[in-house]
Amino acid sequence: MSRIAYVNGRYVPHGEASIHVEDRGYQFADGVYEVCEVRGGALIDARRHLDRLDRSLGALRIAPPMSRAALLLVLRETVRRNTVRNGMVYMQVTRGVARRDHAFPPADTPASIVVTARRSDFAAQEALAATGVKVISLPENRWPRVDIKTVGLLPNVLAKQAAKEAGAREAWFVDAAGHVTEGASTNAWIVTAGGTIVTRPADAGILRGITRTVVLEEARALGYALEERPFTLAEAHAAAEAFITAASTLVMPVIAIDGQAVGDGKPGPVATRLRQRFHDFAEFSI
Amino acid sequence: MSRIAYVNGRYVPHGEASIHVEDRGYQFADGVYEVCEVRGGALIDARRHLDRLDRSLGALRIAPPMSRAALLLVLRETVRRNTVRNGMVYMQVTRGVARRDHAFPPADTPASIVVTARRSDFAAQEALAATGVKVISLPENRWPRVDIKTVGLLPNVLAKQAAKEAGAREAWFVDAAGHVTEGASTNAWIVTAGGTIVTRPADAGILRGITRTVVLEEARALGYALEERPFTLAEAHAAAEAFITAASTLVMPVIAIDGQAVGDGKPGPVATRLRQRFHDFAEFSI
Repeated sequence: MSRIAYVNGRYVPHGEASIHVEDRGYQFADGVYEVCEVRGGALIDARRHLDRLDRSLGALRIAPPMSRAALLLVLRETVRRNTVRNGMVYMQVTRGVARRDHAFPPADTPASIVVTARRSDFAAQEALAATGVKVISLPENRWPRVDIKTVGLLPNVLAKQAAKEAGAREAWFVDAAGHVTEGASTNAWIVTAGGTIVTRPADAGILRGITRTVVLEEARALGYALEERPFTLAEAHAAAEAFITAASTLVMPVIAIDGQAVGDGKPGPVATRLRQRFHDFAEFSI
Repeated sequence: MSRIAYVNGRYVPHGEASIHVEDRGYQFADGVYEVCEVRGGALIDARRHLDRLDRSLGALRIAPPMSRAALLLVLRETVRRNTVRNGMVYMQVTRGVARRDHAFPPADTPASIVVTARRSDFAAQEALAATGVKVISLPENRWPRVDIKTVGLLPNVLAKQAAKEAGAREAWFVDAAGHVTEGASTNAWIVTAGGTIVTRPADAGILRGITRTVVLEEARALGYALEERPFTLAEAHAAAEAFITAASTLVMPVIAIDGQAVGDGKPGPVATRLRQRFHDFAEFSI
């Protein structure tokens, strides 16, 4: 069965899914996105993803292209038409199509919306989690508004490529104070030698990850000691465990940072347990 | 006559000019662009624009979509088909279409290229230059690699919109040291009370503007004292003149900064002369 995409009101074959060259997403990165896990055909934490989409749109003053109820229908229909049981649904909203000019176009310019869905290789993801992944560190070089989930992802692209070329899966950005901010597409976590789970607060410098929020709730419920505070690369090197979280990877153990093993160089028990139990805490919506 | 765009090998009506939703320019701002003035049907400083395009592509490791000779033909043909005598030609090159993944796609993924052309309202531009424009200042909030001309322009979009809402035409970014870096789509200049033309060096923190380079040569040739060094907002407020430069605006006098008049609040003689004589120094190519 061929892939189907939703583009501005129509379901079209993926190969024909196109937007205008003067879409402001293409010319200015003037748009935002969300990626939501699909599991057993259900959307995972859709409410939170749509809350964050609203927040991103509000921060950029882009009018939502449709109601939340309508968008949920589109997400579900796109998942259904692509027969995705386990995978991801991707949505992107931009400030629409207008003659090229930096300032906002007329207020009645409709936002553009694209929704795609695809299957994940569940077994491959689990195999990866069983092995764990490596990360590298890079100086933070993104703009300060990374709390808005924009499509201006070129620094993230370059960081991911650098990671890939170093044999790693993710790159952690390190700010001028020496603190890890987050990964190029994930939030960053450590577990101290004393067993405390540490992740950076989401008030500045990082995206408030949905999976991050769920894992915080999960860790609390499971009785782990928890600190929301910045941590340094040195702390991460000395940690018992490290892991990353995102809707596309869930909880993924980190076994090395910049070529140096974390703990015993194997996925740790805390990350593994948080991964296994994640869906007990996530919110399913069919 | 309707507008025509060049998209990946084809000349198509502007309304039908589209790229795939998984073009990396759309999903990641993974692309670069150039805007080149067209005057009397000729391309202005095309060689320098294509040099800079090559540099931007090289910095991002995007393989050029075609030879320089072929691209020049496309630029000229797009200008011709749109019967542009005075206006602009816009070109955008991205890392092509690929299944969404931050890291680079396979090396054989062809880059995408879009070229559009449009007429400028010459009389309106001249009228604006006769009146001068206002600018506002904003804290610098772009990533450090603004020397690469990427389509990741959201901070510039927000700055331009803030300027527009303040009744101004441009926003100047001011770095942490209090120095003006550049405008959201222009380079920034002042003329001191002593008559020295000052603009920030292009070695870091700004884009090396083509119009900026030509104006530097022009100012030297016309015998003006010239300093390439950072200047503060306070210096700009105390300056005899200020102006901005870009291929789309050429030399445009600035008459107020943050609501405070520059000099006598009218376009100054240096900016006016540099604007008038600009095309004596620019390079025409038919």
